Amino acid sequence: MKINDLRIDRKRLQKSLEEMAKIGATPGGGVQRLTLSDEDKRARDLLVQWLKGLDLTITVDEMGNIFGRRGGKNNDLPPVMSGSHIDSQPKGGRFDGILGVMGPLEVLHTLNENKVETERPLEIVAWTNEEGCRFPPAMVSSGVWSGALDKQWAYDKTDVDGKRFEDELIRIGYKGDEPAEKRPVHAYYEYHIEQGPILEKNGIDIGAPKGILCLHWYDIYLEGEANQVGPTPMEGRHDALCAASEMILKVNDVPEKMGGNMVATVGEIQNYPNSRNIIPDGVHFTVDIRSWDDEKAIQAWNSLQLDFEAIAKRRGCPIRIEETWRVNHAPFDENLVQRVLETADELGHSKLHMVSGAGHDASYMNQVCPTAMIFVPSINGRSHVEVEETTWEDCANGANVLLHCMIKAANDI
Amino acid sequence: MKINDLRIDRKRLQKSLEEMAKIGATPGGGVQRLTLSDEDKRARDLLVQWLKGLDLTITVDEMGNIFGRRGGKNNDLPPVMSGSHIDSQPKGGRFDGILGVMGPLEVLHTLNENKVETERPLEIVAWTNEEGCRFPPAMVSSGVWSGALDKQWAYDKTDVDGKRFEDELIRIGYKGDEPAEKRPVHAYYEYHIEQGPILEKNGIDIGAPKGILCLHWYDIYLEGEANQVGPTPMEGRHDALCAASEMILKVNDVPEKMGGNMVATVGEIQNYPNSRNIIPDGVHFTVDIRSWDDEKAIQAWNSLQLDFEAIAKRRGCPIRIEETWRVNHAPFDENLVQRVLETADELGHSKLHMVSGAGHDASYMNQVCPTAMIFVPSINGRSHVEVEETTWEDCANGANVLLHCMIKAANDI
Repeated sequence: MKINDLRIDRKRLQKSLEEMAKIGATPGGGVQRLTLSDEDKRARDLLVQWLKGLDLTITVDEMGNIFGRRGGKNNDLPPVMSGSHIDSQPKGGRFDGILGVMGPLEVLHTLNENKVETERPLEIVAWTNEEGCRFPPAMVSSGVWSGALDKQWAYDKTDVDGKRFEDELIRIGYKGDEPAEKRPVHAYYEYHIEQGPILEKNGIDIGAPKGILCLHWYDIYLEGEANQVGPTPMEGRHDALCAASEMILKVNDVPEKMGGNMVATVGEIQNYPNSRNIIPDGVHFTVDIRSWDDEKAIQAWNSLQLDFEAIAKRRGCPIRIEETWRVNHAPFDENLVQRVLETADELGHSKLHMVSGAGHDASYMNQVCPTAMIFVPSINGRSHVEVEETTWEDCANGANVLLHCMIKAANDI
Repeated sequence: MKINDLRIDRKRLQKSLEEMAKIGATPGGGVQRLTLSDEDKRARDLLVQWLKGLDLTITVDEMGNIFGRRGGKNNDLPPVMSGSHIDSQPKGGRFDGILGVMGPLEVLHTLNENKVETERPLEIVAWTNEEGCRFPPAMVSSGVWSGALDKQWAYDKTDVDGKRFEDELIRIGYKGDEPAEKRPVHAYYEYHIEQGPILEKNGIDIGAPKGILCLHWYDIYLEGEANQVGPTPMEGRHDALCAASEMILKVNDVPEKMGGNMVATVGEIQNYPNSRNIIPDGVHFTVDIRSWDDEKAIQAWNSLQLDFEAIAKRRGCPIRIEETWRVNHAPFDENLVQRVLETADELGHSKLHMVSGAGHDASYMNQVCPTAMIFVPSINGRSHVEVEETTWEDCANGANVLLHCMIKAANDI
């Protein structure tokens, strides 16, 4: 068989995704595989079993990142790497993350089966705690591996029950010996569902993001004055929830005000004491701003801060603002992105040069080595929900693009 | 001693309030004595011990309401009754409810000590579950006793842990044998802190509410569409929290729109899935509307409903509305209210004819017999919070007004 005619086995890819979807399956058809949970451990064990079946050299590093290496003709050359994550959102979907692990697994399976040798070694990787919903923030372990985040800081993160990240890593048996430190990588591809509606809406098979939007996270804390609602006149109230409501609407309006190319969201709110006959005296809410234009995101935040201060002052609700996390926009390697587009063409798929609104481990890998991503359509643009869905055909299309991108990169001298 | 010169013992009243404040004391200086909790039981036990010390006839009814009766010259005449409640809000204050039990206790103590006989019997009562924060709604047991609410419905209420009201009543040993059924009462006085800022602001000692505002409770459920925030454009989003925020501000504005004499509040909100990078797909919030004018409250609600429907439609967030609870405004007995005002005058206290914004057990007693309330100032108008405070002098003033109102009513033939 000519190398150009090589294709992955879509039935086998489907089966591996279906097997993984059983681990942490939810009644609503999704999965709940929170990082370092028992479900995460079971999914890891299954992955390791499959990696062993492919005769890969398996290493687990101190952050629990799992690597499987397939040797090349010249093992002194830096490898071509591809991977994503196993963990999910609470009530998440069956494709987010895991498709980017099952994809390269299927690629390596196909290469083994067809006895294809490459110049460079190939590596599959599963990064720990990409979602960050149990131990915020997101993409922690690719962040440590790349040198952007501190290992001890990550170890000391605690979940809502006060359990430490490191303790949970040890508990599930995935604190390895290998240092979680970057080493030379020739190219990194991450295969993922789009998580947005653009590919499906435009009838496109394959997306090649030119990079990932910047991401700003803020935490807002408001104080009000609690009182029995009945005898407390409207005048003179300091209602923290009313102040928060005004601010939430300002966040919702800021992308249009700044002229598009931006999303801004309040996803989380806590209200205290949260009793129907007491005026709220404390509110915490989050702000998430994303844009391709770092400067515009800063401008939007500055504008929101002014609005927030004015609302807080008018309502007599003292405000405290925390700037929790900022990641600049990450433009991917142009050559690698171009190769994804060309490969899609060669395989007869329509393709789109786009951006990624979601953060991915590829953001941190992009700081280590040339990086690109391959997107396939999300039905109705839905993700982080149980009804998240991508057709098996699209899953196979993306995996074939990944196969040929990896082969090409692995034969770069 | 002339009967007109009789005064309660303010030190003893203070001591009884201080003893009660130890049960369920919070670090912030308040109390947490949720209904049918261990703290509620300990406070009941202490009350019963004190009632026994006053040689009263004690009965406990099927709802756990505790009655202590002091005989009169003519025990065939319906009694004069006074009482309130022992339970508190979570992190509530040291006066709300319990002042209205310690007040008549001190009155009976004073009468015993001075060997004052009355024509009619006198009764003190402690009603179960006035606050309704553990088992909503509020004022449940005076409601059952008065015949307005169903006993079995109350028994089957469950708390957030799924514990049944009746089971908890049995657990703490306060499910009595006496039927929880109304019987003739000559007059009911409830002594309470104002829970608002009006008396203090105007430098008034004693408030005599002409009645209690109507109270409407509504529960609103909104559906949105959950999606990863990054890749989901602002256009086409269905963000349930943004819809809720608009509605909360409408609630806040409705009293002014309707022309005052009304309060409207959103005290409670739940947001789902409440994750900072997922668009909210479900929000529940409460609405509390109170007015002296029942019709105006209905008009306000009708106006809000129209606003809610329009917002829900524009944002593509289906809405479900529950009308949870409606109590009409309760005008008290004019003669009894007048007697409170006159008695305050006789004792040299400034007084105010006002309304009660908060609901009280007096609302249901008002359906059974002539009813009035006695209010004393709340410092800074604060209540349902740990810093709730009333001076010992004001506590004594109100108890003296209660003393003479009860004596007068008990000598009505």
